[in-house]
Amino acid sequence: MKKAVLLFYCLFLSFVVFAEDGYQLWLRYYLIDNKNLLEQYRAAITGIQINGNTPGLEAAKEEIITGLSGLLGKKIPLQKEFTTGTLLIGTPASSNQIKSLSLPQLQKTGDEGFSITTLKRNGKNIIAIAANTDAGVLYGVFHFLRLLQTHQGIQNLSIVSVPKVRNRILNHWDNLDRTVERGYAGFSIWDWHKLPDYIDPRYKDYARANASIGINGTVLTNVNANALVLTPQYLEKVAALASIFRPYGIKVYLTARFSAPVEIGGLKTADPLDHQVQQWWKDKAKEIYQYIPDFGGFLVKANSEGQPGPQNYGRNHAEGANMLADALAPYKGIVMWRAFVYSGETPEDRFKQAYSEFKPLDGKFRPNVMVQVKNGPIDFQPREPFHPLFGAMPQTPLMMEFQLTQEYLGQGTNLVYEAPMFKEVLDADTYAKGKGSTVANVIDGRLDGHTLTGMAAVSNIGTDRNWTGHLFGQANWYALGRLAWDHTLTSEKIADEWVRQTFSNNTTLLNSIKSIMLSSHEAMVNYMTPLGLHHIMGYSHHYGPAPWWDKAPRADWNPVYFHKADSLGIGFDRTSKGSNALAQYTPEVRKRFEDISTCPEEYLLWFHHVSWKYKMKSGRTLWEEMCYKYNEGVKAVRAMQAQWAGMEKAIDKERFEHVKMLLNIQEKEAVWWRDACLLYFQTFSKMPIPAQYEQPAHTLEYYESLKFPNAPGI
Amino acid sequence: MKKAVLLFYCLFLSFVVFAEDGYQLWLRYYLIDNKNLLEQYRAAITGIQINGNTPGLEAAKEEIITGLSGLLGKKIPLQKEFTTGTLLIGTPASSNQIKSLSLPQLQKTGDEGFSITTLKRNGKNIIAIAANTDAGVLYGVFHFLRLLQTHQGIQNLSIVSVPKVRNRILNHWDNLDRTVERGYAGFSIWDWHKLPDYIDPRYKDYARANASIGINGTVLTNVNANALVLTPQYLEKVAALASIFRPYGIKVYLTARFSAPVEIGGLKTADPLDHQVQQWWKDKAKEIYQYIPDFGGFLVKANSEGQPGPQNYGRNHAEGANMLADALAPYKGIVMWRAFVYSGETPEDRFKQAYSEFKPLDGKFRPNVMVQVKNGPIDFQPREPFHPLFGAMPQTPLMMEFQLTQEYLGQGTNLVYEAPMFKEVLDADTYAKGKGSTVANVIDGRLDGHTLTGMAAVSNIGTDRNWTGHLFGQANWYALGRLAWDHTLTSEKIADEWVRQTFSNNTTLLNSIKSIMLSSHEAMVNYMTPLGLHHIMGYSHHYGPAPWWDKAPRADWNPVYFHKADSLGIGFDRTSKGSNALAQYTPEVRKRFEDISTCPEEYLLWFHHVSWKYKMKSGRTLWEEMCYKYNEGVKAVRAMQAQWAGMEKAIDKERFEHVKMLLNIQEKEAVWWRDACLLYFQTFSKMPIPAQYEQPAHTLEYYESLKFPNAPGI
Repeated sequence: MKKAVLLFYCLFLSFVVFAEDGYQLWLRYYLIDNKNLLEQYRAAITGIQINGNTPGLEAAKEEIITGLSGLLGKKIPLQKEFTTGTLLIGTPASSNQIKSLSLPQLQKTGDEGFSITTLKRNGKNIIAIAANTDAGVLYGVFHFLRLLQTHQGIQNLSIVSVPKVRNRILNHWDNLDRTVERGYAGFSIWDWHKLPDYIDPRYKDYARANASIGINGTVLTNVNANALVLTPQYLEKVAALASIFRPYGIKVYLTARFSAPVEIGGLKTADPLDHQVQQWWKDKAKEIYQYIPDFGGFLVKANSEGQPGPQNYGRNHAEGANMLADALAPYKGIVMWRAFVYSGETPEDRFKQAYSEFKPLDGKFRPNVMVQVKNGPIDFQPREPFHPLFGAMPQTPLMMEFQLTQEYLGQGTNLVYEAPMFKEVLDADTYAKGKGSTVANVIDGRLDGHTLTGMAAVSNIGTDRNWTGHLFGQANWYALGRLAWDHTLTSEKIADEWVRQTFSNNTTLLNSIKSIMLSSHEAMVNYMTPLGLHHIMGYSHHYGPAPWWDKAPRADWNPVYFHKADSLGIGFDRTSKGSNALAQYTPEVRKRFEDISTCPEEYLLWFHHVSWKYKMKSGRTLWEEMCYKYNEGVKAVRAMQAQWAGMEKAIDKERFEHVKMLLNIQEKEAVWWRDACLLYFQTFSKMPIPAQYEQPAHTLEYYESLKFPNAPGI
Repeated sequence: MKKAVLLFYCLFLSFVVFAEDGYQLWLRYYLIDNKNLLEQYRAAITGIQINGNTPGLEAAKEEIITGLSGLLGKKIPLQKEFTTGTLLIGTPASSNQIKSLSLPQLQKTGDEGFSITTLKRNGKNIIAIAANTDAGVLYGVFHFLRLLQTHQGIQNLSIVSVPKVRNRILNHWDNLDRTVERGYAGFSIWDWHKLPDYIDPRYKDYARANASIGINGTVLTNVNANALVLTPQYLEKVAALASIFRPYGIKVYLTARFSAPVEIGGLKTADPLDHQVQQWWKDKAKEIYQYIPDFGGFLVKANSEGQPGPQNYGRNHAEGANMLADALAPYKGIVMWRAFVYSGETPEDRFKQAYSEFKPLDGKFRPNVMVQVKNGPIDFQPREPFHPLFGAMPQTPLMMEFQLTQEYLGQGTNLVYEAPMFKEVLDADTYAKGKGSTVANVIDGRLDGHTLTGMAAVSNIGTDRNWTGHLFGQANWYALGRLAWDHTLTSEKIADEWVRQTFSNNTTLLNSIKSIMLSSHEAMVNYMTPLGLHHIMGYSHHYGPAPWWDKAPRADWNPVYFHKADSLGIGFDRTSKGSNALAQYTPEVRKRFEDISTCPEEYLLWFHHVSWKYKMKSGRTLWEEMCYKYNEGVKAVRAMQAQWAGMEKAIDKERFEHVKMLLNIQEKEAVWWRDACLLYFQTFSKMPIPAQYEQPAHTLEYYESLKFPNAPGI
């Protein structure tokens, strides 16, 4: 074929037949578009030496070949001998060459870390990607590819990387009928009906993507659990998925419905102290491990929002968790027991209930139990103070639960980069053992000497071609993996990596996209819930604003419960004069929040009922500040739109249009939030929206009349 | 870039980054892989002359440029002048050049047909693709591209093509929450929540695919209808879809819930003779046409399976349909009123009920009403005799309703090419006006002189990347379009076109795949419902065999109602000694079916209760024949597997594995059908399964115990 024809055809394939649909995530491996760098890389990488044929090493080999083929535009040969530029990959067990290097750094890398080292071998410059395990090798390979994808120098490499937490897990809230609770990216990627015989190629790409960012576990099923997944008909399907994920270092977990012994076991009770029940779970665990020898364990939502649990039998959470832990212990399985509990009967401030229930149980859990705590005390709001349980249960490994799916963050249509929100919590100081007792140090086990550690996040993945519905949702999945591996990474650094791999290394573009990402969270807080407002969204589907809603079957599902607006002011008084939730924090934290003059304004209405005329630091009254903030939020979205529009020529048409359309929706929704909330709160403040701001286009009645009976994700 | 690098990168893009995932359907436009032919095509096509900038012509222009770029591997320039090899495209209205040709064939092509003609212009050989309308031009462009895709000669072209039926329509049984009733390819491609502001690129590709095979209408919503789609909130979304489809000649239709005036209109009744109700629909039609000026009309399921309808008010189907027809008439909209009705109260043979209700209404419908009749009298079974209404309502335009989605045909996992099944019905002779009164001639209006004609099929399209779940499901979508355009095409010809465009023009491969396709329907009939068995599948979800089921809330939802197996024999006696359903056919047809000796054996148990010891033409008893047929079915699937396996080297890995895995499932399911059905029927026949056949691996109790609570598509 003539070169011109070939070039044309190649462009045709790239741009006409195969549009940029986002499926490849950050693993795009396109040819390095900087010529000098390309030449440098080609000179530095001339061959691959990787021995061993375990599934894990095969996966690593396939990835490095695919990755280098794309990035360098040529096939890098597999070698037996060394040349200048050999990439030597493996474990001491798989490769005599790696073994003979006697790399001292492998004493630090444990069973998941890796080292990447430039060194001389037989007089040749080579690069060694080494680890003690196959999983470590795979992580090293992905790290090395990332260096190239992000245009980093690869001379004199001396990298040692070890994950800071041990269990880095996605929680899929996926139902067996393929609906996804709070899912906004289509439906569940688990095609249960066709499993185990039909293996969707997507399963492997899911595993690759997770492994590339260090995620090593996946809970396949919704925490609002269905016991059927524990039956043989489904375990066979679970096993099929596990076998796809295993080479990528990923374990599968399931949600255990506490009443399973009754529902599928035919027992009359699920009382955790009942011997028959205990035996049923032991038998069930044995059965599961026959299907899946490296099964990870159970995630449990019990006695929360209608889910069954030990309290149905007068037992506490520890008794429930320990029964399951005992069943899993012989196989090294773990229990992740969620602390997201609040009672329909208890009139106690919902903020306080998890702490009230769990704090007294500290020290009562088996060693293979982790308590999984949401980042904040309510429920994944755009901004929450850190959960008071962090630092309060030193004898218990606490696992972080973040939410990638944007249940309260604009769902499928709003661009919000969540890393700054995650970091805000991770970096928060609990003062549990004095200054520097950050949430991150609770989570990574350093503060209290735990080795069982973990970070989880509710997945935002679905059947949409680009995985996450909104292309920028990919960045949140990416950030979760990277932060679980190393919570000291900055939001900016993670965004930088993601943009370079997903879009381009072009500095102008890179900075523009990063600027959008890094401003997006604060923008959203401002147009949805500024100044510490929380949980004022639509009832049940949680779509859009509904601060007026007061008809939920329980008080603490109503926005009015949370904002408490009245003629005097607005906000939930959680000081000692109010619900006294602040008493759950250490004195240092408590004091700062308790005093309205030291309480950061972004948390103000979380903790104080504040007069509409209260003077803010800006000099504005609270009401004026609220108007200001809501308008700032809208303004920021418009700025994002303008920045994006400016990149039209630098971004492929399909992704450009995708994000542009979604930013248009986001702008509409930001205006909707602002106008609906201000009109509603105005009925209490009785003050005008200052004339310099856009005035609402509709009446409050109009906003209250909107209905969304088919909103997704319920 | 060096050629070698380019080639490598090109291959990398083709095979690593972009796998063959089936998204492109039959519009793949890959480089012609026959060198001589490529040269011929390149010589014959040197430039494109297409004038006019209507959306339809822009769509045609984009398609011809994209198509030729891919197929010829070079950009064919747009021209103002003629050269040898100019492709002149347009309508007399859009192009003076076309106009000046004064093509006589344009008097025959009507408003959707086209001509493709080789002729001389200014002494140059050119090819003219001409039509009277933009839609005709687009169909011509797709036809021309198909000639190239299927490696046809393009010298001396003299093609005139006109569709045989006017309304060629997909029926989407898609709900507003994106579930799809009887959908096995994921979920609805209509993302209602994000419409109208987010336009999924898939919508345009859907339109292109349909236009390429002549489909010109789409009913967006389920026949089990939700009135909400008729509210402004949704009409705005429907309008957005309509605007994507319009350039491709595709009209949108909606399902009208008969009780909408009550549910969303606030009226107390939906009685079609009530003036307020009539006015409500008139106002609603007016409103719809304000959103969608070329709205196609309504599809209605009324008084069927719990849907509301005119009978709720003591009115008949004509009175209901006519009310809607009157509302749509000012805008040239049509009503497609379904004849799929059967009553829960009437003990009459379900086979007979549609005819009983509709036949007396012939002549009572408004001119813009079509009665939409399923191909057979029961419900999309693997094999049904033609519906007795065909030919029985000469004064009423009857529209065909086929089902592409494989509700009763192995759902998402079985390969069955449906064209032979469609053709069996279309070619069936009703004898309504003597010999030759085929169903096809009823449908195309020739028999009774109707100009309002139509063919519809229930869509098999969903969010799965390859659109139809099973790759071969695409062939059924393709076949529907082609048959609606021209019902005289053979199944073989349509398969030939589809395979060439989808896989390859390589003769060996082509013949192998066609052989699988053409044998697949009979194979399925044999392993599911041989000899005229029908409706013996799992209750509600219709997945797998359940001939034993007798617990449905109504008799005619039970398999036992349909097969009537007892110690004497099996089959539904519909002769004059039985339900006398045969009386609904013309005497010629009736006689043939009534006499057991002339009744084709493939329909035997549709019409006769036959002794287990009845001697079949083969010399076997009925029981032996049943055992033989079930085993033949399994054998045929295994032959399909073997044939497919033989093509491993000739087919890309991804599609090869996809089909291979599904054929494995199909084989398992065929064995399951055979063994479950034979074991169950054996309880009546009391005869052994002859020893030469595989014996069932499980007991009947095992098969009866299988449960599928999360089967898709319900």
